[in-house]
Amino acid sequence: MPPRGRRPAGGSDTREVILAAAGGLFAEVGFERTTMREVAGRAGVDPALIHHYFVNKDGLLAAALALPVDPARLLAGLDKDPDHAGQAIVRRVLGMWEADPQTRRRLLALMRVGLSHEHAAEVLRDLLGRTILTVVARVVAEDDRPLRAALVGTQMGGLLLGRYLLGIPAVRDATSEQLVVAIGPVVQHYLTGPIGGRAARRSPPKA
Amino acid sequence: MPPRGRRPAGGSDTREVILAAAGGLFAEVGFERTTMREVAGRAGVDPALIHHYFVNKDGLLAAALALPVDPARLLAGLDKDPDHAGQAIVRRVLGMWEADPQTRRRLLALMRVGLSHEHAAEVLRDLLGRTILTVVARVVAEDDRPLRAALVGTQMGGLLLGRYLLGIPAVRDATSEQLVVAIGPVVQHYLTGPIGGRAARRSPPKA
Repeated sequence: MPPRGRRPAGGSDTREVILAAAGGLFAEVGFERTTMREVAGRAGVDPALIHHYFVNKDGLLAAALALPVDPARLLAGLDKDPDHAGQAIVRRVLGMWEADPQTRRRLLALMRVGLSHEHAAEVLRDLLGRTILTVVARVVAEDDRPLRAALVGTQMGGLLLGRYLLGIPAVRDATSEQLVVAIGPVVQHYLTGPIGGRAARRSPPKA
Repeated sequence: MPPRGRRPAGGSDTREVILAAAGGLFAEVGFERTTMREVAGRAGVDPALIHHYFVNKDGLLAAALALPVDPARLLAGLDKDPDHAGQAIVRRVLGMWEADPQTRRRLLALMRVGLSHEHAAEVLRDLLGRTILTVVARVVAEDDRPLRAALVGTQMGGLLLGRYLLGIPAVRDATSEQLVVAIGPVVQHYLTGPIGGRAARRSPPKA
């Protein structure tokens, strides 16, 4: 039996619980001030387990910054139906967040770290920026792709912030499909609509 | 002369510099762990000055949570031209952020605290929620006002996050008017468009 309520080493989500605890502490007190002992305390595990899974604090940060879902795979195939890419993006991203509590804990920890830790913010910004830009590039053929991708980022980031981190009641309590219907056309507008007064030219269909 | 590069007590923005320093520290290490001495160190002022302006740490938190601009005044009169309220909201909010560096520092500190401190998040959520809801109530007469207000909040929050806190290049470097043109129609859509498949009924014009 594990002593005093500590999680057993083989618990299927021990690694995830450690990561969520680390993500929370990195966000609250910063990476420098977080100790392995505090992470262990919050996660309710023996400190030796953290070393077992992540070697050291740098390993923990790297793991905390890794997306639990491959964004390229999540957003694959959107170019096949460019007129509905907006709704599809909202549906798939919310689906990812709501698939299971473990992924959600990880993503929330990732968001907290990304918002508070300069290096983490940079890593996230680049990774998400590249991913969204790749999707946009498949859907539109325009010079203003970076702005379109960034605008999609502002709406999706604001949605995730309001629904999961701040918990604004009306967006927290809406169903995913309500949000797909309400926000999908906005993401679509940013992808292919007239953001600078004119609509985007479409990317030529691939052979 | 102030000793060793410290700001003079009468410096016009001393109070603002202290608030920005406090906001940054509250966000990074949390309210509990922040000491008055650290705030003074970061702000480059004598600790006695903080007591002079804010009495104690609670006073500092209260001041850090106060909006530097009255949101009701900022958003006044939007009901006079409901079809352009979306663009007006984006223009006025960006105008507020960009009016002067002092206000911007304060708002950025406020955002950092709001994203990391549970109590601050709640205060902000309520205050902004009520303000946006008031605007929405003037423009549309619908049961789904809370959802419309929250959707406006997600887009505006995501914009401010991307432009000022994360610094996503394409939204950081865009002009305010570019963003008004690109995002204004989205805010308008959330106010009066078919967010659940149908358009909003307008509020009846006032006598």
